[in-house]
Amino acid sequence: MGIRLGANRYGKAENRVVRIVRDTERHEIHDLNVSTSLRGDFASAHLEGDQSAVLPTDTQKNTAFAYAKEHGVASVEDYAIALGRRLLTATPAATGCHVRVEEYAWDRIFVGGDELRGHDHAFVRRGGEVRTAEVDVTHDRVVVTSGLTDLVVLKSTGSEFTGFLRDDYTTLAEADDRILATSLTASWRWARSEGTDWNQAHAQVRSTLLEAFATTYSRALQETLWVMGRAVLERRPEIAEISFAAPNKHHHLVDLAPFGVENHGEVFIAADRPYGLIEATITRDV
Amino acid sequence: MGIRLGANRYGKAENRVVRIVRDTERHEIHDLNVSTSLRGDFASAHLEGDQSAVLPTDTQKNTAFAYAKEHGVASVEDYAIALGRRLLTATPAATGCHVRVEEYAWDRIFVGGDELRGHDHAFVRRGGEVRTAEVDVTHDRVVVTSGLTDLVVLKSTGSEFTGFLRDDYTTLAEADDRILATSLTASWRWARSEGTDWNQAHAQVRSTLLEAFATTYSRALQETLWVMGRAVLERRPEIAEISFAAPNKHHHLVDLAPFGVENHGEVFIAADRPYGLIEATITRDV
Amino acid sequence: MGIRLGANRYGKAENRVVRIVRDTERHEIHDLNVSTSLRGDFASAHLEGDQSAVLPTDTQKNTAFAYAKEHGVASVEDYAIALGRRLLTATPAATGCHVRVEEYAWDRIFVGGDELRGHDHAFVRRGGEVRTAEVDVTHDRVVVTSGLTDLVVLKSTGSEFTGFLRDDYTTLAEADDRILATSLTASWRWARSEGTDWNQAHAQVRSTLLEAFATTYSRALQETLWVMGRAVLERRPEIAEISFAAPNKHHHLVDLAPFGVENHGEVFIAADRPYGLIEATITRDV
Amino acid sequence: MGIRLGANRYGKAENRVVRIVRDTERHEIHDLNVSTSLRGDFASAHLEGDQSAVLPTDTQKNTAFAYAKEHGVASVEDYAIALGRRLLTATPAATGCHVRVEEYAWDRIFVGGDELRGHDHAFVRRGGEVRTAEVDVTHDRVVVTSGLTDLVVLKSTGSEFTGFLRDDYTTLAEADDRILATSLTASWRWARSEGTDWNQAHAQVRSTLLEAFATTYSRALQETLWVMGRAVLERRPEIAEISFAAPNKHHHLVDLAPFGVENHGEVFIAADRPYGLIEATITRDV
Repeated sequence: MGIRLGANRYGKAENRVVRIVRDTERHEIHDLNVSTSLRGDFASAHLEGDQSAVLPTDTQKNTAFAYAKEHGVASVEDYAIALGRRLLTATPAATGCHVRVEEYAWDRIFVGGDELRGHDHAFVRRGGEVRTAEVDVTHDRVVVTSGLTDLVVLKSTGSEFTGFLRDDYTTLAEADDRILATSLTASWRWARSEGTDWNQAHAQVRSTLLEAFATTYSRALQETLWVMGRAVLERRPEIAEISFAAPNKHHHLVDLAPFGVENHGEVFIAADRPYGLIEATITRDV
Repeated sequence: MGIRLGANRYGKAENRVVRIVRDTERHEIHDLNVSTSLRGDFASAHLEGDQSAVLPTDTQKNTAFAYAKEHGVASVEDYAIALGRRLLTATPAATGCHVRVEEYAWDRIFVGGDELRGHDHAFVRRGGEVRTAEVDVTHDRVVVTSGLTDLVVLKSTGSEFTGFLRDDYTTLAEADDRILATSLTASWRWARSEGTDWNQAHAQVRSTLLEAFATTYSRALQETLWVMGRAVLERRPEIAEISFAAPNKHHHLVDLAPFGVENHGEVFIAADRPYGLIEATITRDV
Repeated sequence: MGIRLGANRYGKAENRVVRIVRDTERHEIHDLNVSTSLRGDFASAHLEGDQSAVLPTDTQKNTAFAYAKEHGVASVEDYAIALGRRLLTATPAATGCHVRVEEYAWDRIFVGGDELRGHDHAFVRRGGEVRTAEVDVTHDRVVVTSGLTDLVVLKSTGSEFTGFLRDDYTTLAEADDRILATSLTASWRWARSEGTDWNQAHAQVRSTLLEAFATTYSRALQETLWVMGRAVLERRPEIAEISFAAPNKHHHLVDLAPFGVENHGEVFIAADRPYGLIEATITRDV
Repeated sequence: MGIRLGANRYGKAENRVVRIVRDTERHEIHDLNVSTSLRGDFASAHLEGDQSAVLPTDTQKNTAFAYAKEHGVASVEDYAIALGRRLLTATPAATGCHVRVEEYAWDRIFVGGDELRGHDHAFVRRGGEVRTAEVDVTHDRVVVTSGLTDLVVLKSTGSEFTGFLRDDYTTLAEADDRILATSLTASWRWARSEGTDWNQAHAQVRSTLLEAFATTYSRALQETLWVMGRAVLERRPEIAEISFAAPNKHHHLVDLAPFGVENHGEVFIAADRPYGLIEATITRDV
């Protein structure tokens, strides 16, 4: 009945790195939330309190900030790859490094008379979904997974849910015209990525997801996810798989009949909890 | 030493009303968070447990949903006025009704080949700032205050903070080029509002705020707020005053010198807490 | 149509001050969230960008941390009074200073064989409600308001809601036995406070509130608040008034009849939104 | 390059089930957040929009509420096992069901003169950590993992961090006396569990964790986690492994020297982000 150390990793989470590119008067902003972790042979730190193999999380933080300048942030994927490689190299005991980056988008403020260019150094945060990149670096490979979270989408018609399994606890009525809404988290893993234009790729996948959501009649959120994922894999053959976590954000039709008011799909209460939660991976056979 | 009931009010908070306008195939969506409260002579409910003068908060909720259909949501201000008047009328003991509405914006999803129109019934939540309306209704007047929250703006240059008062606890260095960022809450009270196009007015005030923020050199967030508020009052003479709550979201320059890396305003850590908090009202003499 | 600066104030919000008292081996911990603001004649900062009268919010932060050592934290009220007086004194243009302190409670960890004392320097955060103090200092007076937030209480019986006003939008059924639950925010203002043992007073008011909540049959949350407030004012004649904000956290009885299961007040769904919101002040005639 | 459906599951998340046991005048409360998911052969729902194999998430919700009455909540583990078995049985296409339950603790309100028993039906939410249970049910086994989240602990001395690896980006000073604080998430998987008294077991593991944290001198959070985990495995031989996620909640010593104030570990700023994140599993050889 020996007791031993199992899987372990450590790092610095949620470094709020803001990088201003100001090489010209027209600034750019990269607003990031960066988390790194190292894994490998760190048993002595656990079992004996010996830190000699441990690159401090404070150093991981320093590196995240320094690399925002030294390497730059051409894309979150590029930056994460460079950061992960550096941390792995700097830590002999490590066998792998995982980097996660979230990026918050900003738009230029438009000033009257210059509606196309926007202001050189004044920005308004866009809000809405967050772009993500996860990079896992080991000594012989780099795995890149791009993604997004909190992409909130809704269809006010073109969605049904009928013909489902029933048991003794089933009271749900069939719905042939309902609101379908979700706050999408999606991540797509790249089988190969040499030469990828990460920013163009992200925009393309995002618009593919939105277009598939909009134009597909939905017989269940499961079907919608499948169609969205398949469209992404068809568009970008370098992507090996895409995974979704999609809370079904329920919008309940409000009964206005007691007040003599008809409600043909016009007034809903948006519920917080509980919510359906649909998770699926669409993958490519190899 | 008599003990008595002082100010009191009651209502239903955070009704998540979603109104779909589907009179044609091109749907519209109004996504609202509605809170109402009544004040007046409700002493017997407190002192004697007698509810006969109390319109239940559940009824306030029902009315909020029913009015989204019966009255519609041409604007959050219009809807709030109608709802407040109804609740006041329905409650003889009430002397006033306060309605607060938050609106979350949605954009149409763009589908390839139809980039200008967007989809008829598929939407993506815009994120970013929230539009607000507060309406206070009594038997002889209606006060309308429009606003917004969470408008996050940032200037990457054009901001200083120098020449401030110093005491024994002052260590802050003067800054002649810093990041200025805030998450703005603003609300503007209308002195008169007959015939106002609320949606146009909101867009105009918002763009005035953004343009003033972008184009004003800032010697302090206080000065920036003053300029923003003055611009709004100059643009719309019907507005009596505008109030701001503006957290100074600090971006601290990261010291990269230990790594031999220069940092001329390029790499910052975005701090969560503490934050400066600047509050100011700009008003019109009457 | 002159435009001018109205009310304004500025300060540093949410300084997370942790003070360890380690004069002996038996440490104590004070875990605080401190916000300060100054008001007065700061027009030149707004109108002219002149900061010469402005004590920086960074200095307010420094003072909050330094005073945790120099003055100590015998109670949040004592500390807030000292901090407010200092900031007012340090800022000639200020006419008032407002200090708000939240305190998070910690318990000693109990180690086997020493269950009464607890560990000397190992603590577990208690969770639950937060203690608050708000102090407003001007040149001729200090107003102290003690309080708490997030005190979540629930009665599983002994609560009804009947006999209420009805209109065309009323569908609520009368309830003669329901769950009553709220997350209480309460604040009590002291008319005089010389020599008050703030920590004892806080414990006494808290237990008075809880006991009144527990032992009073409730015909509405309004009535319960009245009884709770009256009990506090009766217990402590130095308290001038007490104010409550009490969300009615609805627990809806779940209909289990379709499954052949009876539900006599046994299974509820705890709803997030909307919630009733009852606000009331109980005051003392002077 | 065939595209196919990979792993998938679906369920209802965050059902806020509140169960009042009122068989006698002395009520008990179980306040739960319940999430369920089913996995198996649901390809036709995704690929063809055919729901005939899909037990709706709405039915999963109904079952969660009904089972709170029919099966009861002797412990969160017992309840989760029963619920998981039911959902698996009800869904022929399912190969597995996962149930996660969070429980929020409530204490009885103490009323003067009855300090030992507390009130029969009035409760105050305890706050602090949340108890968790995760149960995974397949046709041939049930895996039970008990746990807790948000157990916030702190040591004001007895913690160092020295002798760590340094590279070009390392600036951290060695610390021979610091605050160690974390918000612990822990989960322990049971190798066998017949006849386990889940409530007693949970209390025992919790106190073992706390006692190990308090009494162990810490040379790193990693070492502290190892000692805590080992103590649990030694105490309960039925537990196969325990996993931790422990954010190192940094408390930075504030430099008060500019104000002529010494600070020997007495005044700290509690930082929000970034934080260290230490994850480790302690396991038993089989």
